[in-house]
Amino acid sequence: MGKDNPKKAVVLVSGGIDSSTTLALATKKNYSCFALTINYGQRHHIEIEFAKRICKAFNVKAHKVIDIDLTTIGGSALTDPAIQVPESHASGIPVTYVPARNTIMLSIALGWAEVIDADAIFVGANAVDYSGYPDCRPEYIKSFEKMANLATKRGLEGRLISINAPLIDMTKAEIIKLGESLNIDFSATVSCYQANSSGAACGVCDSCRIRRDGFEKARVQDPTVYS
Amino acid sequence: MGKDNPKKAVVLVSGGIDSSTTLALATKKNYSCFALTINYGQRHHIEIEFAKRICKAFNVKAHKVIDIDLTTIGGSALTDPAIQVPESHASGIPVTYVPARNTIMLSIALGWAEVIDADAIFVGANAVDYSGYPDCRPEYIKSFEKMANLATKRGLEGRLISINAPLIDMTKAEIIKLGESLNIDFSATVSCYQANSSGAACGVCDSCRIRRDGFEKARVQDPTVYS
Repeated sequence: MGKDNPKKAVVLVSGGIDSSTTLALATKKNYSCFALTINYGQRHHIEIEFAKRICKAFNVKAHKVIDIDLTTIGGSALTDPAIQVPESHASGIPVTYVPARNTIMLSIALGWAEVIDADAIFVGANAVDYSGYPDCRPEYIKSFEKMANLATKRGLEGRLISINAPLIDMTKAEIIKLGESLNIDFSATVSCYQANSSGAACGVCDSCRIRRDGFEKARVQDPTVYS
Repeated sequence: MGKDNPKKAVVLVSGGIDSSTTLALATKKNYSCFALTINYGQRHHIEIEFAKRICKAFNVKAHKVIDIDLTTIGGSALTDPAIQVPESHASGIPVTYVPARNTIMLSIALGWAEVIDADAIFVGANAVDYSGYPDCRPEYIKSFEKMANLATKRGLEGRLISINAPLIDMTKAEIIKLGESLNIDFSATVSCYQANSSGAACGVCDSCRIRRDGFEKARVQDPTVYS
């Protein structure tokens, strides 16, 4: 693990390309990284196994997996088995949008950040590929940061915590190129909304389409295994 | 249940006096109430049974209990068995403060609110008794509301959701008098941080002290059973 670094960050790690690249970036910025994976009952729970692999590869200080069963409230194709994962969508907010997901995940990250006195939280939110998701916009992230600094002891003391979404304005191809430069093993990531139990991707959901297209445009070899 | 009311609210209900009074207020304001209890691994988990009783008494539309294990991150006497619940505190933030608890609970409420298209969220946060808690201040609630309206589909459409903490500036005695006027059965509420398995209160923790003092000042008979 090397010597302790005074700057600490909680990094949300899902096992996908974006959060893996975000973890790589936070590591490169010399943060001591505390990885957090939220198991919210998503269909693609194989991603948790991939998150563990990525965390190991980047030698994080700690990795916690916290369960919260969002299937209780449903409202998304990712958390309600009655809603089918679509193969593509035209416009508007897709049914794979999970209500308040980023807010819930960032809030839990904020709790842990307060316990370990972290200086920053990193999240792989992206406004380009997920343009329909309200909680993937820069103004949302800024607003969460403001709220977070009113919500916590650190904030009261004037020691602000920063909420960082470094990929927010990047295309998937740009993220993949960045990830490659940071030595990410993309075969240890999974993007599919309905990957099978060994992690093989469906190849037809929105997330698979965006990922495949990203590798093509980045001219990076795609190691994805399709079922 | 009576006829459907067009205004819906998600109400955070913990089983204590404040959240019960908040539920009574939201009911009186003609909201269709959807009660949400977060089981975050608190020591006083008997409160969940009390929450169920209160929800039944107020005939809520639905009551969901969502589990999230905050003992994983610890950092509070309520979620870490290694930290003792104090019998009193002098000043500053008490060890019973749970990092980011209100943010996490409001975020989950926001997720459900989005699924059912609720107009409001009600929370029993109080700045008087819990003056040391950063997330019990009016400016925090306002900031959460602003963030919530950037985080959700409703917000994008300009149909704002309101975050209501109607008790925030009231003393415990004022809350008890209000609750009495709204016909709350206080014997169905629990406040103790370490109530036993039948709900009897310890009588010595901060929360017991505040509750007992509140009944005395309100000149309302205290039905609390002490162990």
